[in-house]
Amino acid sequence: MKKVLMCLSTDLQPSSFDIITGIDSGADFILPYGSVSESNVKDIVYDCVFTRSKKDLKSIGIFIGGRDVQLTESIGETIKGIFFDDLRVSVALDPMGAYTTATATVLKIKKALHRINGSNSVVLAGTGPIGQNIAVLLAKEGSNVSITSRKLEKAKSVCDLLEKKYSVDIKPSEVKNDSDTERIISNKDIVVSSGAIGIKLLSKYTWIDKNIKILADVNAVPPLGIGGIGPHDDFVEKYNKICFGAIAIGELKMVIHRKIISELFKSNNLFFGLLEIYKLSEKIT
Amino acid sequence: MKKVLMCLSTDLQPSSFDIITGIDSGADFILPYGSVSESNVKDIVYDCVFTRSKKDLKSIGIFIGGRDVQLTESIGETIKGIFFDDLRVSVALDPMGAYTTATATVLKIKKALHRINGSNSVVLAGTGPIGQNIAVLLAKEGSNVSITSRKLEKAKSVCDLLEKKYSVDIKPSEVKNDSDTERIISNKDIVVSSGAIGIKLLSKYTWIDKNIKILADVNAVPPLGIGGIGPHDDFVEKYNKICFGAIAIGELKMVIHRKIISELFKSNNLFFGLLEIYKLSEKIT
Amino acid sequence: MKKVLMCLSTDLQPSSFDIITGIDSGADFILPYGSVSESNVKDIVYDCVFTRSKKDLKSIGIFIGGRDVQLTESIGETIKGIFFDDLRVSVALDPMGAYTTATATVLKIKKALHRINGSNSVVLAGTGPIGQNIAVLLAKEGSNVSITSRKLEKAKSVCDLLEKKYSVDIKPSEVKNDSDTERIISNKDIVVSSGAIGIKLLSKYTWIDKNIKILADVNAVPPLGIGGIGPHDDFVEKYNKICFGAIAIGELKMVIHRKIISELFKSNNLFFGLLEIYKLSEKIT
Repeated sequence: MKKVLMCLSTDLQPSSFDIITGIDSGADFILPYGSVSESNVKDIVYDCVFTRSKKDLKSIGIFIGGRDVQLTESIGETIKGIFFDDLRVSVALDPMGAYTTATATVLKIKKALHRINGSNSVVLAGTGPIGQNIAVLLAKEGSNVSITSRKLEKAKSVCDLLEKKYSVDIKPSEVKNDSDTERIISNKDIVVSSGAIGIKLLSKYTWIDKNIKILADVNAVPPLGIGGIGPHDDFVEKYNKICFGAIAIGELKMVIHRKIISELFKSNNLFFGLLEIYKLSEKIT
Repeated sequence: MKKVLMCLSTDLQPSSFDIITGIDSGADFILPYGSVSESNVKDIVYDCVFTRSKKDLKSIGIFIGGRDVQLTESIGETIKGIFFDDLRVSVALDPMGAYTTATATVLKIKKALHRINGSNSVVLAGTGPIGQNIAVLLAKEGSNVSITSRKLEKAKSVCDLLEKKYSVDIKPSEVKNDSDTERIISNKDIVVSSGAIGIKLLSKYTWIDKNIKILADVNAVPPLGIGGIGPHDDFVEKYNKICFGAIAIGELKMVIHRKIISELFKSNNLFFGLLEIYKLSEKIT
Repeated sequence: MKKVLMCLSTDLQPSSFDIITGIDSGADFILPYGSVSESNVKDIVYDCVFTRSKKDLKSIGIFIGGRDVQLTESIGETIKGIFFDDLRVSVALDPMGAYTTATATVLKIKKALHRINGSNSVVLAGTGPIGQNIAVLLAKEGSNVSITSRKLEKAKSVCDLLEKKYSVDIKPSEVKNDSDTERIISNKDIVVSSGAIGIKLLSKYTWIDKNIKILADVNAVPPLGIGGIGPHDDFVEKYNKICFGAIAIGELKMVIHRKIISELFKSNNLFFGLLEIYKLSEKIT
């Protein structure tokens, strides 16, 4: 049977990134659907389960992306409720690429660190989709995680949301200036930067003399989030810290993304959210 | 040449059912077009005939589906008028899957019945797309057909429309309660149920002692339209009646749908409406 | 790597012509994007360059078509600005098929004429997309070109625009009636007709006794733009003039269109506007 990937997005149109990665993951056909919402998703996915016999449904998969993380997640839940008995196909979520990017980041950190459980970590400017999910995965690995934001309220509401969704205890912190940043990274084993493109969050001379073990920056466009890290840095040691740049993380992210899509076609009853993507990816690194 | 199926729909987007079935019928490429109307269809289909030499136009086909049966049919007529001389491609209509489902239902009935010509039949709650087309095909086979509705006016207007479109004489009947239903099925050879999902139209104890020869139910979701029939029943005899359930009918419907699409690619001058689909399908059963 | 053609259009949906020609040019996957504008094009194309390694980006191409020539051209410029360093894919523009049709027309003329440089030419009703681009290419070949219109102002504004875009000096002419037309073709070596479908611009008995060397008509639907020319005429001599009909021109146009698309997949840093399409096509005729 031809492998069909239904590529859904909460954006007006699915990203060419998600479609081409679907192609490169072995899909024979891509069915793109934009502007997917909770109200129209049933119409879009329901009919596909009646096209093939149960044993052939594994050759149909659904991928959901887009900029709206919350909406993507609630659409994922809605889809679960549409299918019944064996009349189902496998589903993967990766809003903004945040799940696969967070997974790649934390897997690299875990591999570099002797002991992630009990470590102290901070995700600088971590209230966005990627930062949030990095924080969740670090917390699930037993790290004591803080998320910083320029506004405490913003950080608090994100931490509350993550506790509700993933039962993780993440500490919100306000960072208004460089000395706030210096203070918060001082006692951390792991420092991750996940701010907006073009904003430098941490200068080199702030971190080189600290007791930090691992530095990771998910921003590939200069100026980078952490000074002194190169985008290609991959397990590179600088001033006794192991450093990861955004391109190195991005390469693993691509491997993970492709792996998830090809996995969809192995069974008709899989569901990949953040934690399932992380769990599967641990095996391939 | 690569086989290209232009998959048009009167809905916002073509159904994944129609697209995936197109793929499974041998199309190499699917071009999906949603929100197709009489005003935009010319722009959508006209250009395709200039892409290939006349001998290669048979490798392009047009399928039109969607919930709006009337609009699909008028779009089909409009498309016929767009093409000229040899500059044409083959077209198939199957709004809501009604043509292929009606075809599958009536072909099963015809095969099971010694003599369909001159028989008496009723399509319960037959004013919807599938019921209407079952009634037309039964009438074309020489059966005396009634359509029931809870409102006589509704049934009448459907029968008038079908007479105009297909020159068939179908009798409208009002059915307000179970005793109306019992009366109308009493003298019938064929009883088909095509009501809305989840509405039981006929209980088992109403039909088992009647002189009915064939019972067919096109609803696959419980509660089924006719009590005592299983969705997988396929030429199953119960109380001296031959019974057909919706899944058995649906399996033949899929065979027919795929056959029609693969037929599109054999010539560039075919048009498949209800009667053409029925005629072609008679040969494959 | 699978060859992916992103098929963009300024129209509501990309033309089936452009999509199917993309397929026939060797693309393995087509990603259709309609309603493309300067404001949404970045989101549509940006992500694609991050899906594959630099050496594999040549297997992704972008084609932009649609009715709005100006918008297509400014979108083309916008796309150039989106890409940076090696993170780019090749792009071809062909709004309304005007670039490839103009190229085919002028290449045929050039091949038929002993000396195009210094010749006198007129494009009748040449203010539309195809006529404009034919005029540009003739001017680039050194011909003294006039464009006619029923309104001088219209012709003037087109000539001004073309001078700005292509640094060509094209003369605007008003043609209100048949004697105006006769006057203007009298001293021309080349007469091209590119008016709207169904309007005859030049009757046979007006041109047969003139000193014209080449006649070309890009309109394939009767009544043709120039009386006495058949749509299949291809280097056919009539009354000492070499004649080209629209179907003969269209066949070369198809060859050129397919060539351009297949060329996109040879490198990741090509850009095909009118002049690049013309230059490349000279080699294949």
